Amino acid sequence: MAAVQTTFHVSTKGNTDVLDLTGKVERIVAESRIRTGVVNVSGLGSTLAITTIEFEPGAVSDLRRALDEIAPANDNYAHNARWDDHNGYAHLRSALMGTAASFPVSDGSLRLGTWQQIILCEFDDRPREREITVTVMGE
Amino acid sequence: MAAVQTTFHVSTKGNTDVLDLTGKVERIVAESRIRTGVVNVSGLGSTLAITTIEFEPGAVSDLRRALDEIAPANDNYAHNARWDDHNGYAHLRSALMGTAASFPVSDGSLRLGTWQQIILCEFDDRPREREITVTVMGE
Amino acid sequence: MAAVQTTFHVSTKGNTDVLDLTGKVERIVAESRIRTGVVNVSGLGSTLAITTIEFEPGAVSDLRRALDEIAPANDNYAHNARWDDHNGYAHLRSALMGTAASFPVSDGSLRLGTWQQIILCEFDDRPREREITVTVMGE
Repeated sequence: MAAVQTTFHVSTKGNTDVLDLTGKVERIVAESRIRTGVVNVSGLGSTLAITTIEFEPGAVSDLRRALDEIAPANDNYAHNARWDDHNGYAHLRSALMGTAASFPVSDGSLRLGTWQQIILCEFDDRPREREITVTVMGE
Repeated sequence: MAAVQTTFHVSTKGNTDVLDLTGKVERIVAESRIRTGVVNVSGLGSTLAITTIEFEPGAVSDLRRALDEIAPANDNYAHNARWDDHNGYAHLRSALMGTAASFPVSDGSLRLGTWQQIILCEFDDRPREREITVTVMGE
Repeated sequence: MAAVQTTFHVSTKGNTDVLDLTGKVERIVAESRIRTGVVNVSGLGSTLAITTIEFEPGAVSDLRRALDEIAPANDNYAHNARWDDHNGYAHLRSALMGTAASFPVSDGSLRLGTWQQIILCEFDDRPREREITVTVMGE
């Protein structure tokens, strides 16, 4: 058994920018030499989410539209009123979706569906430099 | 420490069919001989979700009704327009809920509440054969 | 590699009471002596959720308001009709959000953002004594 952890950074544009992390995670899993286990992909912060989707412009735009309905950017948020802030919607979306996800590692590879990609959703209202931690554990 | 991984398949009916995976996962945990650790339950694909619920017809029907409101099957999805597809709602539901969940293993058993069952939600609009990967890690 | 598991209990007030678990989890991670790995935080039951948020009264109140819209406490739930129960909304919220979350352990510490705290959301309609299991795995 081993635990191999890698941290990398990605630049986002803000405003529900959605980035595909799959290639990066696949390489980290391959380089870990772990054959059987689980990989945890975690974004640092309270205004982002990690999940999977079919990473094509249609499905991504459907996700953004749904989030605009569930947690509209310009609603009246108590967080904004209290701190003179503008990203109350971003905190809400992050709490609802979660900032990390875990997937199987099988035969030395990340096990995802053909149309399933790991994405970072940047909810903050400005460009951010994000820290992503990938931890592969297994044997 | 060990990592024990088992993959099995289940047939679904499509259209937010909800299946109880708890018995299967309990057996895999017991057979792993791991006493203390975590079990990850992961469904392969981008039109399904894994979560827990009290698995009784009322709560399951409440979940299906809520998802029909959050991501209606017959809304106008950019995914459908782009690919002449019909399952844009399924991709959206999967991205919002996630395709995997992890639970404690304590004293050699899966640690869930009495009224808490692990479910697979099949969002695709047709019957599917689904691959579920259960990874038990611990000692 | 090691797996270190600790269970503790917290008293909640019910009705979407939100509690900050971060300090407790940080101490358990530090005491585990694990330097590199993942920590899983899991709540037992089907009427609670575990996630992260900026734990300040504004963001917490925004989350509660959003959940009141997504799954109102006094809607007509099939779960309530079937079991003469009152917490159908609580089961729904728990299934949508999930009862566990996992985070990186780096350099012997829980790796969270400055404004990111781990919370327990108590959805049941009465005070509860909740069991939280924290499992640290790594090396």
